Amino acid sequence: MEQLEMERFLNEQKRAVEAALSHYVAQLDGPETLKKAMAYSLEAGGKRIRPLLLLATIQSLGQPPALGLPVACAIEMIHTYSLIHDDLPSMDNDDLRRGKPTNHKVFGEAIAILAGDGLLTYAFQLIAEIDDERVPLVVRLQLIAELAKAAGPEGMVAGQVADMEGEGKPLALPELEYIHRHKTGKMLQYSVRAGALLGGADARQRRELDEFAAHLGLAFQIRDDILDVEGTEEKIGKRVGSDREHHKATYPALLSLAGAKEKLSFHIDAAKRHLQQAGVDDAVLAYICELVAARDH
Amino acid sequence: MEQLEMERFLNEQKRAVEAALSHYVAQLDGPETLKKAMAYSLEAGGKRIRPLLLLATIQSLGQPPALGLPVACAIEMIHTYSLIHDDLPSMDNDDLRRGKPTNHKVFGEAIAILAGDGLLTYAFQLIAEIDDERVPLVVRLQLIAELAKAAGPEGMVAGQVADMEGEGKPLALPELEYIHRHKTGKMLQYSVRAGALLGGADARQRRELDEFAAHLGLAFQIRDDILDVEGTEEKIGKRVGSDREHHKATYPALLSLAGAKEKLSFHIDAAKRHLQQAGVDDAVLAYICELVAARDH
Repeated sequence: MEQLEMERFLNEQKRAVEAALSHYVAQLDGPETLKKAMAYSLEAGGKRIRPLLLLATIQSLGQPPALGLPVACAIEMIHTYSLIHDDLPSMDNDDLRRGKPTNHKVFGEAIAILAGDGLLTYAFQLIAEIDDERVPLVVRLQLIAELAKAAGPEGMVAGQVADMEGEGKPLALPELEYIHRHKTGKMLQYSVRAGALLGGADARQRRELDEFAAHLGLAFQIRDDILDVEGTEEKIGKRVGSDREHHKATYPALLSLAGAKEKLSFHIDAAKRHLQQAGVDDAVLAYICELVAARDH
Repeated sequence: MEQLEMERFLNEQKRAVEAALSHYVAQLDGPETLKKAMAYSLEAGGKRIRPLLLLATIQSLGQPPALGLPVACAIEMIHTYSLIHDDLPSMDNDDLRRGKPTNHKVFGEAIAILAGDGLLTYAFQLIAEIDDERVPLVVRLQLIAELAKAAGPEGMVAGQVADMEGEGKPLALPELEYIHRHKTGKMLQYSVRAGALLGGADARQRRELDEFAAHLGLAFQIRDDILDVEGTEEKIGKRVGSDREHHKATYPALLSLAGAKEKLSFHIDAAKRHLQQAGVDDAVLAYICELVAARDH
């Protein structure tokens, strides 16, 4: 695919995910305040990198991406719930997210907590209710089990706890990597794994794609840390420089800015190598890799 | 079964559930603080009415209750997460639960929120990972879909939002019933439905058991409201009289104490009638019904 074609493909998929997300919330038979709070954060924009990774992985295996739409929405709901809960006053206490007031600033803390709980719960319903004979029952169950593992107390929630416990403490690189491998890495990896499952990848492809996603996840986080030093508030939509203010352990703080950039290159290269070894139609996934390496927000 | 035999059966099942709950948390590969916070609230006691309803329903259909142990634990984890989040300062702001300090009083708000998130997520993993050929794949998926519906934005979370929005307002009986049918009713009903699914109930049995559970759920809540008027702090393990202090809509407030007791009897009778019509071995379920009607904590 040419670059323009890939951009069109990714934009189309992004729109499909966003339309489906809005539809899933609109069809709920629940209190209006709750639906508004759930939709507010789901519709606050963002790169939709996780759903796109999933859909692009399916495409790389020659299957129709639409096959993964419910799982893509489930992943984005879980990502969104984690942002809502992370922003709460007792957690990171953030007022802005993607340039807009955070959920609890608009709806209050109680509704924000419940909107997060609702999104997390609904995510599992979407997968359990997949009504598509192309997705075998055993695959649906595996998608649910692995999602819970990636998002739960052995995955994202573990990373968040480690992050909170590490606050204000001097962390070494292995501790920092534990946090990122769990807090953001597991869900990014799940996005690719779910795509591999849905696309019918063989064992070797699954292994290589998994490595690809692990390196991409770390690259994503290192780029995040670099942006907090070099980025502009206008582009990122939240305050920059806050990591240093909070004495937060980051890659630039541990390795210097030049060292962090070197590590970013290392993981991007490793991701691309594993992607090539997977033997899939890798153009779009490689393009996403470039976007992660170069992103400015 | 004789009463003594039923009590022994229920105690045995309760112990089996509590052992399994502790085991499931202990085997997690996650931060110790998180595991401690999850275990603290899971092990804080309680009647385990939901798991017992599930296991007794399986037993009433002539199947081995052990078949339902993972689902019983999933239900109790979701119930426990809802208590942890409900007790938070921005929600009900409770310091005591079952006579012990609430989760956020011991571990802080951030960890309490994350322990709740972890329990909710892990619950779905337990069902998706059921490794028992007696439970068909399609039943596992249905158990997950219905659990999400009962616990999520069309179920328990909806009830919690309606409860918060109704605070301090004069509610009519239909609004009060909406809150209870969702906040506590859906999960109680799910417990019986899950038992019916696992026990292989036919369509008529499922329908009657469902009605049984709906009436039992309302009875349970009315008894709760009556206890807040008549109970003692020592037995309940939390402050009594708080509903009236908070001008909370309750059955006694809307119907008088005598009216509430009459409504309690009505729902207990209806529950028993539907139970009989289900044509199952109903001794234990009827006994649970009696316990709900008469419970003093």
